[in-house]
Amino acid sequence: MTRATARPVINNRKELALLERAVKVIPAGMYGHMRAHTPHMPESYPQFWSRGEGAYAWDVDGNRYVDFMCSFGPMLLGHRNAAVEAAAQRQAQLGDTLSGPSPRMVELAELFTATVAHADWAMFAKNGTDVTSAAVRIARAASGRRKLLKATAAYHGANEWFTPKTAGVTAEDRANIVEFTYNDVTDLQRAVAENTGDIAAIIVTPFRHDSYVPQADVEVQFARTARELATKEGAALILDEVRAGFRLHVRGAWEPLGVRPDLTAYSKAIANGYALSALVGTDSLREAASEVYVTGSFWFSSVAMAASIATITQAVELDAPAVMETAGTRFKKGLEAQAAEAGLPMEVTGPAQIPLLNFVDDPDLRKALAFTDAAARRGVLLHPWHNMFLSTAHTAEIIDDVLDRTQQAFTEIAQQDL
Amino acid sequence: MTRATARPVINNRKELALLERAVKVIPAGMYGHMRAHTPHMPESYPQFWSRGEGAYAWDVDGNRYVDFMCSFGPMLLGHRNAAVEAAAQRQAQLGDTLSGPSPRMVELAELFTATVAHADWAMFAKNGTDVTSAAVRIARAASGRRKLLKATAAYHGANEWFTPKTAGVTAEDRANIVEFTYNDVTDLQRAVAENTGDIAAIIVTPFRHDSYVPQADVEVQFARTARELATKEGAALILDEVRAGFRLHVRGAWEPLGVRPDLTAYSKAIANGYALSALVGTDSLREAASEVYVTGSFWFSSVAMAASIATITQAVELDAPAVMETAGTRFKKGLEAQAAEAGLPMEVTGPAQIPLLNFVDDPDLRKALAFTDAAARRGVLLHPWHNMFLSTAHTAEIIDDVLDRTQQAFTEIAQQDL
Repeated sequence: MTRATARPVINNRKELALLERAVKVIPAGMYGHMRAHTPHMPESYPQFWSRGEGAYAWDVDGNRYVDFMCSFGPMLLGHRNAAVEAAAQRQAQLGDTLSGPSPRMVELAELFTATVAHADWAMFAKNGTDVTSAAVRIARAASGRRKLLKATAAYHGANEWFTPKTAGVTAEDRANIVEFTYNDVTDLQRAVAENTGDIAAIIVTPFRHDSYVPQADVEVQFARTARELATKEGAALILDEVRAGFRLHVRGAWEPLGVRPDLTAYSKAIANGYALSALVGTDSLREAASEVYVTGSFWFSSVAMAASIATITQAVELDAPAVMETAGTRFKKGLEAQAAEAGLPMEVTGPAQIPLLNFVDDPDLRKALAFTDAAARRGVLLHPWHNMFLSTAHTAEIIDDVLDRTQQAFTEIAQQDL
Repeated sequence: MTRATARPVINNRKELALLERAVKVIPAGMYGHMRAHTPHMPESYPQFWSRGEGAYAWDVDGNRYVDFMCSFGPMLLGHRNAAVEAAAQRQAQLGDTLSGPSPRMVELAELFTATVAHADWAMFAKNGTDVTSAAVRIARAASGRRKLLKATAAYHGANEWFTPKTAGVTAEDRANIVEFTYNDVTDLQRAVAENTGDIAAIIVTPFRHDSYVPQADVEVQFARTARELATKEGAALILDEVRAGFRLHVRGAWEPLGVRPDLTAYSKAIANGYALSALVGTDSLREAASEVYVTGSFWFSSVAMAASIATITQAVELDAPAVMETAGTRFKKGLEAQAAEAGLPMEVTGPAQIPLLNFVDDPDLRKALAFTDAAARRGVLLHPWHNMFLSTAHTAEIIDDVLDRTQQAFTEIAQQDL
């Protein structure tokens, strides 16, 4: 029974027992982007996790996975990075949430402004949504205008403006949202022309990372047009790096293009798993940023800030994006070759550091679900329709081990009628 | 120079150096509810903090304060409570932010539903604003209606609906907000009558805790009317216990009144300083709660949940509200007597656990600022216009020591022309 094509069965006794308890006390057993037990997810994907270390995570039944979700992004340097944990623990010995910030807040703001090319100032919060929302509010305060231009299907958070499911959202909540097609210069020009004089901001992700559909790099002309139109309109260009931050470029995702936003929203990876988000901006928006009232009970807590200082310092020193790009490219090329050989052609789209699986001719995700299920049963945590994340802990050796396992997964599903 | 009336000078060299750095890299040097250097705050109130332990906090220059802000609420059991820190550290050894929740989430939801009287289910997030907003969205999803009734000047978070400063907020953001006067049955009836058929929810705090003005207990008839009108309208009654939670009653602030809400929002004190918020609700709203899309990158992190389990367990075992009420009453009575004797009559309003200073005839806060400044210079951290917070670490001995210091503060300011 050790043949590569055998279907490994995963022990999930504790998972099932927890699920049974969860549905009693949590709506639908689980909510939000980490829901595992839906028809859109592979059957073997676990809902409950017990621990993480480096590139590995363990579910509650003790099954080990090479973790390509990295907690949906936060794990930039791998789980429990030693320097980050040490910095966090040092701060925790002193205090975390006090009646004001500690010196860590000033140090971290200095680090952000020294690291991110366009950043003259920084603010901190807890959720990515906190800072995409704050960016919009600052742009409105600065301009006295209302309209927010965003790409269709682009996710910028779970508040009323952006949430992909509209249950409980009113028409008024979205009255000032105008959509355009990502990478479509003409459509962006149309959206601007139709709202000229009332545009507060254009918000964009550094590349197109909508779920389900192939990811796409930003086209240089599109990025430049967004910059030019925002400047011409007196609107703010907001770059939403919540998902991409510190995985594409430590100085800002669009630095290689020479396009600088007015505001950039960060979260996820900036503190290697500690709850933190950041908004950085240019001097022209400093006054507006000091006028809006945004705050939260834990926004000035110091442990996550200490963790963030250690995370960003290492990310810069290592050139984390380059490290992840090398490993991610090895992973991407290996997977694509295996898929082609198995007769299940698949493209891994987007930056190698933030890859997405896109099987050819797979409208109902049958192939993606079968493959990610077979991979999970072999200890590789992939995602069938959401982008994945590399970390600097994903070494070449780990990628090679993963490719051995995915080879077995492809061999198994190639025998099925998909 | 050890006379009680001498004006102690506080060493603040490090504070001033940090401020100078902060204004360069943070808008206005600081934002939100913890801004210390404004004309509305005492001159000696520090902006930057270095550590906390029990009922004490130290600023960056090493000055020690008996902390009556408790980090604006989170510190229910005092800074760095041993059992909470041990639970958090145990979980941190395993993992915090993983690609899904750990068993801690189920355990915590079970604890909330077992503890809070009306709670059939629980959801978790990071900010108080996350859960007051989610409550409204759930109420709208359940009812298909738009209007949200809230008390004038009541703070329910910093999002566009609620933020007290309207810079960057559009008219559309507030189109569905209807205001009424807290504790005014007739005005609440009016607000309901004017919007009947389109009311999604009524949101209220368990007592009136607006800033600047005296706090007030809820009137039983007002609470009952809110419950009856919500039921009659098919709207949700949302109790916002973000500020009051686990300081008034562990089963729910309105349990002694026999009035049960449909949804209760918690944050601040529930994890003794770790970033967490919770929304609990009744079965009638379970389906709507599973339909709305609310989520965040760190909402399923386990360390804060482990801390919350340890916090709530202790709060119930100790009967934390009763412990704080005893100490708070000693504090309140002592302060009021000293104020009267100094010829600066003052009332300490609201629940003894969450007291607010209200000097008589002090429209420009001159007396409040002079007193809180004199107290801060004597190592007692009070607030001139925002409510304060007791913790279970505020023992009778500590209160008596505080009252010695506030006596000196009153003696000092009684000599001034206020």
